[in-house]
Amino acid sequence: MSSKNILIIGAGRSSSSLIKYLLDESVKHNWHVTVGDMSLEMAKQKVKNHPNGNAILFDINNENQRNTQISNADIVVSMLPAFMHMSVANDCVRLKKHLVTASYVSKEMAALDADAKNAGIVLLNEMGLDPGIDHMSAMQIIDKLKAEGADITSFKSYCGGLVAPESNDNPWGYKFSWNPRNVILAGQGTAMYIENGKYKYIPYNRLFTQTEKIYIENYGYFEGYANRDSLSYRSAYGLENIDTMLRGTLRMPGYCSAWNVFVKLGWTDDTYKIENSHKMTFAQLLEAFLLESNQSLKKRLADFMNLSEDSEEIKKIEWLEIFTDKKIKTENGTPAQILQELLEEKWLLKKEDKDMIVMQHLFEYVSKGKKHLITSSLVAKGEDQTYTAMAKTVGLPAAIAVKMILLNKLDLEGVKIPTEKNIYEPILDELKLFGINFIENHC
Amino acid sequence: MSSKNILIIGAGRSSSSLIKYLLDESVKHNWHVTVGDMSLEMAKQKVKNHPNGNAILFDINNENQRNTQISNADIVVSMLPAFMHMSVANDCVRLKKHLVTASYVSKEMAALDADAKNAGIVLLNEMGLDPGIDHMSAMQIIDKLKAEGADITSFKSYCGGLVAPESNDNPWGYKFSWNPRNVILAGQGTAMYIENGKYKYIPYNRLFTQTEKIYIENYGYFEGYANRDSLSYRSAYGLENIDTMLRGTLRMPGYCSAWNVFVKLGWTDDTYKIENSHKMTFAQLLEAFLLESNQSLKKRLADFMNLSEDSEEIKKIEWLEIFTDKKIKTENGTPAQILQELLEEKWLLKKEDKDMIVMQHLFEYVSKGKKHLITSSLVAKGEDQTYTAMAKTVGLPAAIAVKMILLNKLDLEGVKIPTEKNIYEPILDELKLFGINFIENHC
Repeated sequence: MSSKNILIIGAGRSSSSLIKYLLDESVKHNWHVTVGDMSLEMAKQKVKNHPNGNAILFDINNENQRNTQISNADIVVSMLPAFMHMSVANDCVRLKKHLVTASYVSKEMAALDADAKNAGIVLLNEMGLDPGIDHMSAMQIIDKLKAEGADITSFKSYCGGLVAPESNDNPWGYKFSWNPRNVILAGQGTAMYIENGKYKYIPYNRLFTQTEKIYIENYGYFEGYANRDSLSYRSAYGLENIDTMLRGTLRMPGYCSAWNVFVKLGWTDDTYKIENSHKMTFAQLLEAFLLESNQSLKKRLADFMNLSEDSEEIKKIEWLEIFTDKKIKTENGTPAQILQELLEEKWLLKKEDKDMIVMQHLFEYVSKGKKHLITSSLVAKGEDQTYTAMAKTVGLPAAIAVKMILLNKLDLEGVKIPTEKNIYEPILDELKLFGINFIENHC
Repeated sequence: MSSKNILIIGAGRSSSSLIKYLLDESVKHNWHVTVGDMSLEMAKQKVKNHPNGNAILFDINNENQRNTQISNADIVVSMLPAFMHMSVANDCVRLKKHLVTASYVSKEMAALDADAKNAGIVLLNEMGLDPGIDHMSAMQIIDKLKAEGADITSFKSYCGGLVAPESNDNPWGYKFSWNPRNVILAGQGTAMYIENGKYKYIPYNRLFTQTEKIYIENYGYFEGYANRDSLSYRSAYGLENIDTMLRGTLRMPGYCSAWNVFVKLGWTDDTYKIENSHKMTFAQLLEAFLLESNQSLKKRLADFMNLSEDSEEIKKIEWLEIFTDKKIKTENGTPAQILQELLEEKWLLKKEDKDMIVMQHLFEYVSKGKKHLITSSLVAKGEDQTYTAMAKTVGLPAAIAVKMILLNKLDLEGVKIPTEKNIYEPILDELKLFGINFIENHC
């Protein structure tokens, strides 16, 4: 059995399950796993002195190091932020090494398709949760329905990274299990989808007021708001003529209408700086966004939103200590940065907390003249702060793909995403062993 | 008397009064005026075969032509869109020629200050209406009050390019006298100002709901909404410690709350394209932005805005034929482009129409322990479709500055704006001869 080298770039929160899986597998397959991060400490924490593992300080901007490390590898996994993949992807093409990422295919990545094919390697992207498990689990149903001759008329798909009910001790029902900044900026731009054959557009200023109730057995109701561009998924999923297609994000009930207060106030804006924000309190910042008046800030904010002072929305806002003399630390920050400072404290996933991933697909289709519904739902909970549900669902699909490529069980070339049966079927099967399992309801 | 050459680049709507003034003056001063535009026809229309004038086809991207024409000139006026000034400005520095523009000083322009000083030339910017006449008329009052030892506590300044009352025959009280695109996108971003010593921020999503009433003698009330960054004007005007500083835009009463319908709908968004917009009607586009229902579009839009169907806002929207099967022509356009298509037809300044510029400064100051108010107001009407109020107020300040520079009456070097007495005083004096005259009220 020939030895193989795996290079994992990025050892942050989302990489823990990926690294553990590949180290666990390395023993029987005689693999060596190098984990590189700009924090050597972080890489070491993840490798845990595993005999087949090696933690290194890795500087993505160091061309020599990139060249040496990628040359030594048989396959590379980039868990870097999406915008940092391209130098790695270019090196992989040049050095003829496979690459796996959990990020959306960017235009630059897509443009490498022919070069990757010429090099005889695969650039396999969107191998995480969303994108990743969403594609695979949806395509499994879509391909099955198509094979049966069914006509799929509607497909809605929601996903949320939330806190498990047993760890939910705040009125928002939300804690950060991934990049807080992305949560603050979520939904900016215009959501676009198609419903009953008609285009639908929801601008950001009312995105969080237009939610759909989603029911998940044993977990109750969630609320979903539409994601930016659902239209492009029609072609990705081979559903060009579908009447209804919507992708959305799940939150606990009540979250969206309270979050809408920040949207309307303008506190999610990341495009300009608040002069001298570090000399202000949160109450003073709020004051700067409200009309002058002698009434209390709470009353003025409630009036501004056409809410009562004892509404659930205002209670959620009050719980964040926004009406108080709590000092802002961020210097000359954007409103979004200042809100992030506050929420990182308030929505901290504590040591004993478990996170939870919830995903639901809702299909409507016509078969033999009859209308049918399928809901397919996934709930995955984290084990602890390291092996979170987010880390498992983002990392394991990529990890399994790496294994399959190294074992020559996946024969792929060019730029790919996991919408093909030969990719999604074995990966979804193996994910079940880790409790990542969709429950289908038909009616 | 030595002959001088003036090069004017850009012969669009805003250049007519500028060109006429300089051609008129050219006779007694022995000047030659070259007018270049990418449309030779447009340049010819403005030069009108004047013996001292010359219309040429001018391609701003043609380096050789730029070099030849600027070399031949003693002074250059660029009436191009602001983002196109820099190649001209760089040539002017290199060839040691003065430059006048009516645009805001960009960072790139500001960076040429030392080079312009070394070359012994002036790059005189913001010589139009807003920016231009606003600076000059404000600084005249500010300098006077400071000289009297007064403490200026509040300065608000509003300006609007509107339609004259006698030509106002539509419910919006608005017609395009300048770039329609800028009107559609106006106010995007967050307005920031200072009021009673406190920072104030108004996000775009409610900018048009927070208006101030402005009264102008003989013309009645207007409504003003805040412009983007009023804070930066504190240092520009030497009012670093002022308690209240706000700059805003004027519209006819009722315009803003009706325009807010488009803001809330998302129809001023220029960041994404509506797929197949050219196959849609305006009613269908509206449908795409509203929730599903069996009620009429008009009723649904009214409900969406919490307005009654017979409200003034909905009447204004209805007058635009948005509830009808009127076809959209723009192919895959952004919402803002599609709205512009409609408004360019509806808000067309007709041949016999006159436009109107309205500006008002409101000062509060304390002198000898007493509080005082000054309002200083300008109303300027166009003569016709060519010599509009917009063309006069934008073009004449630049034109007068050109004259003064050529007659050695302005000794300036480097990058300048007209906030200095030696610039604004003679120009404001001469503008009075053209009916551009501020009326002051003190109390």
